[in-house]
Amino acid sequence: MSAKVRLCVTHPLAEGQAVALTKEQAHYLFGVMRLGSGDRVALFNGQHGEWQAEVVEAGKRGGVLDCREQSAPQAMPPDLWLIFAPIKKARTDFIVEKATEMGARRILPVQTDFTNAERIRQDRLQAHAVEAAEQCGGTFVPEVADLQRLDRLLADWPEGRRLMFCDEALVGEARGLPDAPGPWAILIGPEGGFSPSERDRLRALPLAHPVALGPRILRADTAAVAALTLWQTKLGDWT
Amino acid sequence: MSAKVRLCVTHPLAEGQAVALTKEQAHYLFGVMRLGSGDRVALFNGQHGEWQAEVVEAGKRGGVLDCREQSAPQAMPPDLWLIFAPIKKARTDFIVEKATEMGARRILPVQTDFTNAERIRQDRLQAHAVEAAEQCGGTFVPEVADLQRLDRLLADWPEGRRLMFCDEALVGEARGLPDAPGPWAILIGPEGGFSPSERDRLRALPLAHPVALGPRILRADTAAVAALTLWQTKLGDWT
Repeated sequence: MSAKVRLCVTHPLAEGQAVALTKEQAHYLFGVMRLGSGDRVALFNGQHGEWQAEVVEAGKRGGVLDCREQSAPQAMPPDLWLIFAPIKKARTDFIVEKATEMGARRILPVQTDFTNAERIRQDRLQAHAVEAAEQCGGTFVPEVADLQRLDRLLADWPEGRRLMFCDEALVGEARGLPDAPGPWAILIGPEGGFSPSERDRLRALPLAHPVALGPRILRADTAAVAALTLWQTKLGDWT
Repeated sequence: MSAKVRLCVTHPLAEGQAVALTKEQAHYLFGVMRLGSGDRVALFNGQHGEWQAEVVEAGKRGGVLDCREQSAPQAMPPDLWLIFAPIKKARTDFIVEKATEMGARRILPVQTDFTNAERIRQDRLQAHAVEAAEQCGGTFVPEVADLQRLDRLLADWPEGRRLMFCDEALVGEARGLPDAPGPWAILIGPEGGFSPSERDRLRALPLAHPVALGPRILRADTAAVAALTLWQTKLGDWT
């Protein structure tokens, strides 16, 4: 029987590999989930797929799992970034969780001209991504980047990466997504909108594609899921 | 200039119409938003489009607005229901908010065989839908129905209404959405999955269409936005 509890670890995973647990992992498995010796846990590390492991030592501050057999191959999400401007803590958490479930490979929080760049806790957001990956059955955890300025990111835009951006003010210029594989990024417009100079920079990017998300105004977390759905169905791993 | 504050009211709206505010509305406009006489508010009631109104009386416990000119026609969302099984309060609130932004016409919380039907506060959820409609620039507030049993709803399924349902266990049977206009409903699978008898009933519905939402497991609120996106782009008001 497949394990119901999934855990993201940093160890290499292979048959017979012993995996030592951190104090937090031991607390979660044995304290919260009430597992004990002989119980099964599914492990993944973002590289070696999903493995069924058995609890061989269960302690209050640690424990050891033993890898038995691979239960799923490593599945990498498409080379897709999600870029968004964090505003409120709860919504930011949601966006990281949803981007992970929806299959983004990198999550990039940005400061824009019209967002008061609340500081972010990169480590806390990364932990949210880990938890979402454990929940959603994926074998990959997207990297959450540190907060950076949108204008810098656009000034150094990587050659060949297409950008789908969602901006109410540019709805008239919106086109459908082109059938263009390769690296992509999705940029969710900040709640205060883009500044004129940001819009100019976006328009000047050769590989930018404005996309409309319906006739109503969506909150950033709703827009992120909607945009990821459009992209994944047309170009990603949902097809 | 267009008003930034939007308010959903129950009054008829027409040129010169005086709109008396409730105590809560007066508190919101004059206490929270700090508006005063002469300021503009956008009003809608789900029937008469959006109207620009001016504050003519501002008090602590009430006030009066005067309707000036219509700023948007009434826009009805497509005849689309969103059916879901509420589990946790916060996620339920999110689903109602998102279904409103995404343009559902009715929101139906259901009890399924495998969900412990936490009671819902229909009035509180309806208030969430109102707030989401005010935020998203729409002119319509979806009706939030009372909690009902899924098997009863399916047993009395309205003739001619198609059902898009999202269920991991039926992914193998999933097809694309047919290009079939008319009334539809989206059913989001509960986190514990459907029971065998619910699956049988779903399979027996002549107009049911299983749809897959990618290779990862989505939380109910993520799945709701993703499913609404697929439907709106193919059959709804996003095209």
